Amino acid sequence: MTTRTDCLALDAQDLLAPLRARFDLPQGVIYLDGNSLGARPTTALARAQDVIAREWGQDLIRSWNTAGWFDLPKRLGDRLAPLIGARAGEVVITDSTSLNLFKALAAALNMQAEGPPASAARRTIVTERANFPTDIYMAEGLAAWLARGYSVRLVDRVDALPAAIDADCAVLMLTHVNYRTGYQHDMAQLTALAHAQGALTLWDLAHSAGAVPLDLHAAGADLAVGCTYKYLNGGPGAPAFIWVPKHHQAAFCQPLAGWWGHRAPFAMAPGFAAAEGIGRALCGTQPIVSLALVECGLEVFEETDMEAIRAKSLALTDLFIELVEARCGAHRLDLVTPRAHARRGSQVSFTHPHGYAVIAALIARGVIGDYREPAIMRFGFTPLYTSFADVWDAVEILRAVLDDKAYDVDASRGAVT
Amino acid sequence: MTTRTDCLALDAQDLLAPLRARFDLPQGVIYLDGNSLGARPTTALARAQDVIAREWGQDLIRSWNTAGWFDLPKRLGDRLAPLIGARAGEVVITDSTSLNLFKALAAALNMQAEGPPASAARRTIVTERANFPTDIYMAEGLAAWLARGYSVRLVDRVDALPAAIDADCAVLMLTHVNYRTGYQHDMAQLTALAHAQGALTLWDLAHSAGAVPLDLHAAGADLAVGCTYKYLNGGPGAPAFIWVPKHHQAAFCQPLAGWWGHRAPFAMAPGFAAAEGIGRALCGTQPIVSLALVECGLEVFEETDMEAIRAKSLALTDLFIELVEARCGAHRLDLVTPRAHARRGSQVSFTHPHGYAVIAALIARGVIGDYREPAIMRFGFTPLYTSFADVWDAVEILRAVLDDKAYDVDASRGAVT
Repeated sequence: MTTRTDCLALDAQDLLAPLRARFDLPQGVIYLDGNSLGARPTTALARAQDVIAREWGQDLIRSWNTAGWFDLPKRLGDRLAPLIGARAGEVVITDSTSLNLFKALAAALNMQAEGPPASAARRTIVTERANFPTDIYMAEGLAAWLARGYSVRLVDRVDALPAAIDADCAVLMLTHVNYRTGYQHDMAQLTALAHAQGALTLWDLAHSAGAVPLDLHAAGADLAVGCTYKYLNGGPGAPAFIWVPKHHQAAFCQPLAGWWGHRAPFAMAPGFAAAEGIGRALCGTQPIVSLALVECGLEVFEETDMEAIRAKSLALTDLFIELVEARCGAHRLDLVTPRAHARRGSQVSFTHPHGYAVIAALIARGVIGDYREPAIMRFGFTPLYTSFADVWDAVEILRAVLDDKAYDVDASRGAVT
Repeated sequence: MTTRTDCLALDAQDLLAPLRARFDLPQGVIYLDGNSLGARPTTALARAQDVIAREWGQDLIRSWNTAGWFDLPKRLGDRLAPLIGARAGEVVITDSTSLNLFKALAAALNMQAEGPPASAARRTIVTERANFPTDIYMAEGLAAWLARGYSVRLVDRVDALPAAIDADCAVLMLTHVNYRTGYQHDMAQLTALAHAQGALTLWDLAHSAGAVPLDLHAAGADLAVGCTYKYLNGGPGAPAFIWVPKHHQAAFCQPLAGWWGHRAPFAMAPGFAAAEGIGRALCGTQPIVSLALVECGLEVFEETDMEAIRAKSLALTDLFIELVEARCGAHRLDLVTPRAHARRGSQVSFTHPHGYAVIAALIARGVIGDYREPAIMRFGFTPLYTSFADVWDAVEILRAVLDDKAYDVDASRGAVT
């Protein structure tokens, strides 16, 4: 079995290890929740100070031009693009993932409605019942309001997806890596299945961007959205991203068409004319301070690459699974994350009958994972700042909590996020 | 005529004058653009540092609970409420003004559609052609996508509004203070007219909140949205607000129904159930750093009241009009802002044939106003940090620019925001 000494040796060889210094992490904490909120890049404080004191305080309104605030969604989108296999001019960072999903789904339905007559009858949005709930809510909200007979089909099992993608499917809308289980879909295969049926694909990359290598173009994906505050370390609630490939931009039409998506916003014309290019995915004025901090997270990725990150991610999650099964094998833990590398994101989830209480006990001991209904203990592994020794130490604390039953099964359930 | 000595005397008597120290303003600048981007409260830097270094960096994911991030939209909404005549539990700060307008308008149309049969045929959204364009874009986007025969009626003159509010009007959607002219609508009167016709009213308070006293309940308004980064000094692109009075909350239903608007977001149920109360106006995760800074702006208002702010605002705008007309009377300036106090917001706009070039020249000399098509020079007056001497000095610089023709009529038009 792997020992702590082995882990220290792995850390000594780890080419990503120096990047941990790029993050401000609290003493005495093993942070395994970067899949919910990424750690703080050290540069974020100085960047915020510059945006607030100089750009806002001193340059005031002029900063829309001189500090490039207007272009920030596009400039940061271009910087994020290589991480997901997108090209320059295809990504903007803006609004929330929920809102971007709404835009992308509306645009996809519109593309289908304006497609050939044979496809005009398509009225189904196919997704998983296990998808992150807000994606389902937004799809159902859109379907209900369009009042054209659209409906959302919730598929219960991954292996039932192919059959659900039928001739009535307008859009296959999936989260690439499941937030609860860490299951990673085969994007290329599902996209090919969807295209064979005349459907478009919309991918939520919330748990993928910065976590696993992505090549949206190679996979043939149609549209994508995602989150910057998880593996991309953009800051709490940082604006999300939306990807519209060049070949879909002309047809990208959606109802949240505000002035930032206008061709000439300062002409102040009463009629909407969508910007050419990715700008049409914007809506209103963006929260500049939060948006600017996204850059601090993206900068760190430019010092490595997603292949190196993926190799370490798999090594970390393999190690975690190995150690938990070896050291906590007597307890009622069930692995819900796929063992197959190709199907695994950058997290590991185990169920435990008292999962909520165990997570609370771990957090009290400085091991921060999180809990998701039902009974799932979720541990995220961020190769940029998580070491092999962290994994060993976290499992040792988990073992002690379980062996000692050092958790309060009657603990009231506050929100453990 | 008022002299600079008179202005200094007015400043000496001004009870609001000490509040200027609550803002960080650059040396050598007279800032008359708080109607576009409010100045930076001095506390914003320390607040940002605390949110970034401690709440994000040290407490990480726990801050959703321990720092109250989840409740921030409501907590700040309650703090803003008194400035607009709203009550606790009726306002949230979230998303952008454009998006909040979309939510409110969708909800209003839904209320009308579910109203008595006689009103089910209402299909018109009445607004002004001179409204801020994004409001019109969002309304047209919604109307087009609903595909139920809704249309937006653009009224060309304020005095034509009463006739346009007819039996087909579902919603009267107006910006209370016009962004270009500074014209202030009579909210109570127009709301009464709308109600008499069975229409609901939706008010955009972007240029009103923090600028003029507002009493939404006394006016009988139905819904409102607004901006925190202008007169409320919340920071560049800070999240906007939406007001839904208690008596409309149960019927407030809108398509941007994300997990933050869910009754039990962490139950992770696949079906949407709207939160009770104002929470249902939320959608996705909010940009916490930008959101938190809104509090720094709101704090300053708690040291005074809107009546005192309004009295000084009218004195400042009266003075500006008087001095411009007296000292720049030989030039081709036309006042477009109402002289009548009741119809004036907290800005003064003049047209000039070379308005764009004149504004550029003023900015180069440290007087920051802004330009809006067509030919409008716009000057905002923020009583919290603008002095009477500022007004005198700004007019003197304007006079010199005009007398000396010290502006470049061929200047290329970058975005002067």
